Amino acid sequence: MSLATPSVFLNRLSTLHSHLRAAELTALLVTQPANISYLSGLRASAGMLLVSLDGESLIVDSRYGAVARNLYEEGALPKTMRVVIVGSSYEETVCDSLRSLGPTRLGIESDHITLGRYRWLERSLSGSEVTLGPTSGLVERIRLTKDEHEIAVLRQAGSRVSQVMSEMLSELRVGKSEREVAADIEWAVRHAGCEGLAFDTIVASGPNTAMPHARPSARRLRAGDLVLLDFGGVYEGYCVDMTRMASLGQPGVTADEWHRAVRQSHAAALMAIKPGARGSEVDASARAVLDRLGLGRAFVHGTGHGLGIEVHEAPRIGKRRAGTDPEDVQLEPGMVLTIEPGVYFPGTGGVRLEDDVVVTDTGYELLTNAPLELAVVK
Amino acid sequence: MSLATPSVFLNRLSTLHSHLRAAELTALLVTQPANISYLSGLRASAGMLLVSLDGESLIVDSRYGAVARNLYEEGALPKTMRVVIVGSSYEETVCDSLRSLGPTRLGIESDHITLGRYRWLERSLSGSEVTLGPTSGLVERIRLTKDEHEIAVLRQAGSRVSQVMSEMLSELRVGKSEREVAADIEWAVRHAGCEGLAFDTIVASGPNTAMPHARPSARRLRAGDLVLLDFGGVYEGYCVDMTRMASLGQPGVTADEWHRAVRQSHAAALMAIKPGARGSEVDASARAVLDRLGLGRAFVHGTGHGLGIEVHEAPRIGKRRAGTDPEDVQLEPGMVLTIEPGVYFPGTGGVRLEDDVVVTDTGYELLTNAPLELAVVK
Repeated sequence: MSLATPSVFLNRLSTLHSHLRAAELTALLVTQPANISYLSGLRASAGMLLVSLDGESLIVDSRYGAVARNLYEEGALPKTMRVVIVGSSYEETVCDSLRSLGPTRLGIESDHITLGRYRWLERSLSGSEVTLGPTSGLVERIRLTKDEHEIAVLRQAGSRVSQVMSEMLSELRVGKSEREVAADIEWAVRHAGCEGLAFDTIVASGPNTAMPHARPSARRLRAGDLVLLDFGGVYEGYCVDMTRMASLGQPGVTADEWHRAVRQSHAAALMAIKPGARGSEVDASARAVLDRLGLGRAFVHGTGHGLGIEVHEAPRIGKRRAGTDPEDVQLEPGMVLTIEPGVYFPGTGGVRLEDDVVVTDTGYELLTNAPLELAVVK
Repeated sequence: MSLATPSVFLNRLSTLHSHLRAAELTALLVTQPANISYLSGLRASAGMLLVSLDGESLIVDSRYGAVARNLYEEGALPKTMRVVIVGSSYEETVCDSLRSLGPTRLGIESDHITLGRYRWLERSLSGSEVTLGPTSGLVERIRLTKDEHEIAVLRQAGSRVSQVMSEMLSELRVGKSEREVAADIEWAVRHAGCEGLAFDTIVASGPNTAMPHARPSARRLRAGDLVLLDFGGVYEGYCVDMTRMASLGQPGVTADEWHRAVRQSHAAALMAIKPGARGSEVDASARAVLDRLGLGRAFVHGTGHGLGIEVHEAPRIGKRRAGTDPEDVQLEPGMVLTIEPGVYFPGTGGVRLEDDVVVTDTGYELLTNAPLELAVVK
């Protein structure tokens, strides 16, 4: 597995330049960490990237100075990108960098800048040659279809997390607490070579499976429990996310029925994935199965979401919203998404099954892969 | 350890009401997850809380519906708070709730709302009886001094994470990779009763200790290495954060010298903590020690930060900024903060020592507690 090279970032920046020109902007202040990582390779919780048509400034504070300088010295950053270390504050340093650009129409990521910070910029730049233009989704639009490098990384990530899922299902035991199971999962995700977790691990047992976003509790697994494992790992900066179900002992009739229904729904959603299909059509396919089985009202969330550098990103795979719905995009080869139908019965229990796929020219390729059967554990 | 009761939330809401009145507002749209959790007990990655002088609406999507309804049914929510489940979108549901309030001067958390969402609200509410007033830090100001419930939880959290730190230092071994050590730490934090990690675990060895925010890598520990462990746990919704150092075998003269210096700096910072002292004075005390020892330039970050529901919150313990610096607050009893001086030498190594304290009437109380000595591991 090779890391991204400067040419990968140069390609992405060059695509961004065309989008900037089309939007009649000469620069963009990138404030979202995932967008910064996508364009520079720097993974940091703070920092800004100022992209102009003449070159880029990666603005980081002193905590990330050594990391950014290492990237620079190793030749991992594009040659057009310089590293700027923050002086007294991000805002001051950004304003200094901006003023040095001369006349600029500067795009601002309106979905990733706070109202407070925007107003500060507006005040600080008044009277300068910089005019601000709020934008939305300029970098995300490029991130929406993954390049070869990203798909290769995601395949590796999916394979590693799938392996952990199979192991963890087989190691469930009566008497273990949900939190202990979560601890084992996280240890195994790390040992599988992931650098971290993609989100808070979900381990739900018995009635807790009725909560789609349950937090692992002190509840101990009991004979007869349904158990839901939903976790993800971050590998080389990319997220995977998967869900499987187990039964401690033979499942009851109801649990078995829910599981079969969700599995059919999951299969129907996969079959609907192809270039040109809308997210809402994939969602409708998953939903139709559950509706037909009388379980439609128990499916309380969307069928899936995109993922990549972030564990939730475009495209949205859910019901089409009233009016024009710009988020209900048509699928294209290279888009990566989860398929995760589920049914939930408050106080009783629930079932969800989740895999990650990349859209191909003809359909889809699974990135995660573990048996979909309800794992029956003794 | 008892969980927060509705009366805890009612107290906090009542304090917020006085702040709203003082700011000539009749309601506040709370959009920051930590602020929502502080005022309602709901811990969710999405959701909004509309606080008005007449009562509150907790607005959550269907994924959190069961959790919020459980809180409501268990009587864990204040009686004045109703649960609203999102219909087609958060924005629509919020607008509906707002319009139903009648004439309202609505505070908006300008540091926690994106420019895009703010503009949407502005457009949607034009012509209504709701006028928007950007605010900053209304809820954070209350969170700044912890109440008895919070300090009790933080003491528990600190004691549990400290225990893990001592164990983990003693288990370091030549040949283990940084990632494997991180996996062991995270497993132990879970087993200590924490519901999660407070931030990405830092395990740095050898030259990697020179990076304040190093990510655990595949590097294996070697004889003679300095090793830095910086991790935290979340317990009952509250974060602790601590750092200790180990040496694999007897430390070299330089490592020993750095460690002694940082330990003196850490002690000096603690001694400076008392009601009335400014964050910048505590920082100056830590810095003066390192300056005197000729290591001042290697201390590239601030001395500490507040913590609580978030792992980084007010007060800031750093250099005073030019001009008026509203973030350089005077310490008050009940404030909780980290003390974490460090020195870093790119390419060579570094040392950091970190504890969490609560400010008392006369000084401070340590929340974390593990030997500060450089742990020499065979």
